[in-house]
Amino acid sequence: MTVRAAVSPFEIPTEQVGRWVRELGRCGEQPGGGLDRPQYSVAWLQARDLLSSWMHEAGLDVHTDAVGNLFGRLVGRDDGRTVLTGSHLDTVRLGGRYDGALGIVTGLAALAALREQATVPARSVEVVALCEEEGSRFHANYFGSRSILGLVETAELDALVDHEGVTLAQAMRQVGLDPARHRESERSDIEAFLELHIEQGPALYEQGLDVGVVTGITALCWQMVTVTGRADHAGTTPMDVRRDALEGAARMALEIVASARRRGRPAVATTGVWNVEPGGANIVPAQVTFSVDLRHPDAHELDAMIAEVQQRCAAIADVGGLGLDVETVKREAAAPTDPRLQQVLIDAAEICGASWSHLPSGAGHDAQLFALHLPSAMLFVPSIDGRSHCSAEETPDEACAVGARVLAASLHRMAWP
Amino acid sequence: MTVRAAVSPFEIPTEQVGRWVRELGRCGEQPGGGLDRPQYSVAWLQARDLLSSWMHEAGLDVHTDAVGNLFGRLVGRDDGRTVLTGSHLDTVRLGGRYDGALGIVTGLAALAALREQATVPARSVEVVALCEEEGSRFHANYFGSRSILGLVETAELDALVDHEGVTLAQAMRQVGLDPARHRESERSDIEAFLELHIEQGPALYEQGLDVGVVTGITALCWQMVTVTGRADHAGTTPMDVRRDALEGAARMALEIVASARRRGRPAVATTGVWNVEPGGANIVPAQVTFSVDLRHPDAHELDAMIAEVQQRCAAIADVGGLGLDVETVKREAAAPTDPRLQQVLIDAAEICGASWSHLPSGAGHDAQLFALHLPSAMLFVPSIDGRSHCSAEETPDEACAVGARVLAASLHRMAWP
Repeated sequence: MTVRAAVSPFEIPTEQVGRWVRELGRCGEQPGGGLDRPQYSVAWLQARDLLSSWMHEAGLDVHTDAVGNLFGRLVGRDDGRTVLTGSHLDTVRLGGRYDGALGIVTGLAALAALREQATVPARSVEVVALCEEEGSRFHANYFGSRSILGLVETAELDALVDHEGVTLAQAMRQVGLDPARHRESERSDIEAFLELHIEQGPALYEQGLDVGVVTGITALCWQMVTVTGRADHAGTTPMDVRRDALEGAARMALEIVASARRRGRPAVATTGVWNVEPGGANIVPAQVTFSVDLRHPDAHELDAMIAEVQQRCAAIADVGGLGLDVETVKREAAAPTDPRLQQVLIDAAEICGASWSHLPSGAGHDAQLFALHLPSAMLFVPSIDGRSHCSAEETPDEACAVGARVLAASLHRMAWP
Repeated sequence: MTVRAAVSPFEIPTEQVGRWVRELGRCGEQPGGGLDRPQYSVAWLQARDLLSSWMHEAGLDVHTDAVGNLFGRLVGRDDGRTVLTGSHLDTVRLGGRYDGALGIVTGLAALAALREQATVPARSVEVVALCEEEGSRFHANYFGSRSILGLVETAELDALVDHEGVTLAQAMRQVGLDPARHRESERSDIEAFLELHIEQGPALYEQGLDVGVVTGITALCWQMVTVTGRADHAGTTPMDVRRDALEGAARMALEIVASARRRGRPAVATTGVWNVEPGGANIVPAQVTFSVDLRHPDAHELDAMIAEVQQRCAAIADVGGLGLDVETVKREAAAPTDPRLQQVLIDAAEICGASWSHLPSGAGHDAQLFALHLPSAMLFVPSIDGRSHCSAEETPDEACAVGARVLAASLHRMAWP
């Protein structure tokens, strides 16, 4: 490990980031615990106002774009080229305080430190609080980052509705945004994107590491599997003549998770949605539909898992005399991060004396969208016990501050030369 | 096999019973196939009116009781003692034409034949179309037979509601019945009950037998099993640290059906109701609740199954670090039928030249309630392919007629001496 003396770490107070996370976490806090901060909600507006005030206090140029993304800008000598950092402001239902929010407040802490402790940057540097990433209101995943990248279709705005039937366009108007102008949020000046995020898994925490340099965002395949048997009377139909859809589906589910277990980390497989018909205690299940979520950072490994699962499910259906239909509902390619930016993060971690390792991201992130269009990278900080998407989600203040310091050193290497 | 020349079989036209079943099956017929005839519905009233007219045509005394059971009576020399036959008029949702209905129309055909072809009986003989047995509207299973046996609690009438919130008492008023008078349906003159029913399983059909003499109605245990794990992010939580409630529940379900398969016929086990929480495609299931239906005609075997299932589920929960809660929601003792009446059925079958075997009933029936209070027996006829509770439910006309002839000969032996 070589300590590069050329750039010394920037000072970021240990408590600052944790305090900001907790203050932001009061916007959308639920009485029973957990956080609800859907896109364009009152809680989301409150959180954005709070961030805006902190950005002003830090001396940044503050603006929002046509879809509601909030930016704090440290203007560089060449203002036509921008290095962007940040993450999303929305949360899943009953989510935690760190998912998304930490990437925004560490970006803000880094820019505040750089503004005070460094010279004027060569390029501009911005921190962004992105619109809906979780898709927890409109299922418009990555709406903020897609808007910046010019990937939002106008038709989406009237087509996507929340669970109360409000369209995305209506919700925009309710917060003073004109949906007709959504394309104005597209940017062409962004040269690179850097996102700090909690790991949401246990690897860094288990190994006692400060930060993770994300090699890529995992490839993903979602399927809906329908197993068809025959409804029969539970009391009068002998076991040997049944075609029990649930029995077949249970066997398939066990094969699916076993397939990921055999491969070991980082392969994962989940069957989370289940619908059993007709759903009577005294009726043999006639049809079971369940979701399959398969992920692996290596596309070839993912393909092998998909093929194996398909083959084993087909064999189970054959033996049980069951119908089988497998519909692929989503397929996301792996999004490798930029190798040069990975090296920037590694160098920054070493300058800051932070322990690090490479690791893949099992979850999707805004950086995944950016990575397909411009050099992008991700920095992970530990999640205690790997918990996420729940109120137990936590990262110690010291770990947040270390992440912010590595982020600041990285941005300095990207925007100052 | 001894042919008893003392009583010769009664003539019942081969097509009569099948034709009545099909006419009755038009009451509640659904456009997409299958039959809906819930208690006190328009379809149920139509079916009862039709039966009433056939009873009048057959020369029987017709009356309805305080809860809506319909009776056709052949008055005997001693009118204070009654032999009762019949079955239920309601159907499960999208059920078949034979379940219940066949027991009523064969009873009617038998009484019509006996009235024409035999002398005046020593005791009165009645055929009954019983109220809700399936519990498909009010979950008031065996409401008709329980009323006759004086087992209905007045509080039930206001407490039980259908899926639209209508109480049993309100539904009674809507068809002109006074719920306050429900106790008037209790009877003390019934000496024996005999129910003909489709088998709803494949045993008679597979063996090519005409009728089955039911030895007893199976013991039954219903449980709700709750498996508790931990919700985790499907992308970021390695397989080796998950506590996946669905994985545990799937293993349990397979052990439960395997337990019945190992024992062979007539043991059965079914898991028909499934609820998986939180039910997101990208969230590891935190909690799964599923129903267990275990049946065996031998109470000791059923106890052994329950104990085995409990032990294996506990072991699976232990290995997976899962919580387990098992709630017993229903336990019905086996209801053996009357040995003397079984012999009456066997003698009648032999007189009619009908092939027969003993067999248990895996399903519950009104006869189960009667059997706990007075001598009762059941006669099964074959179900094609064992299908029931669906539109595919069928029994050939000839098999229906053979059943009716055995029933007539049985009633003759019971009510004439």
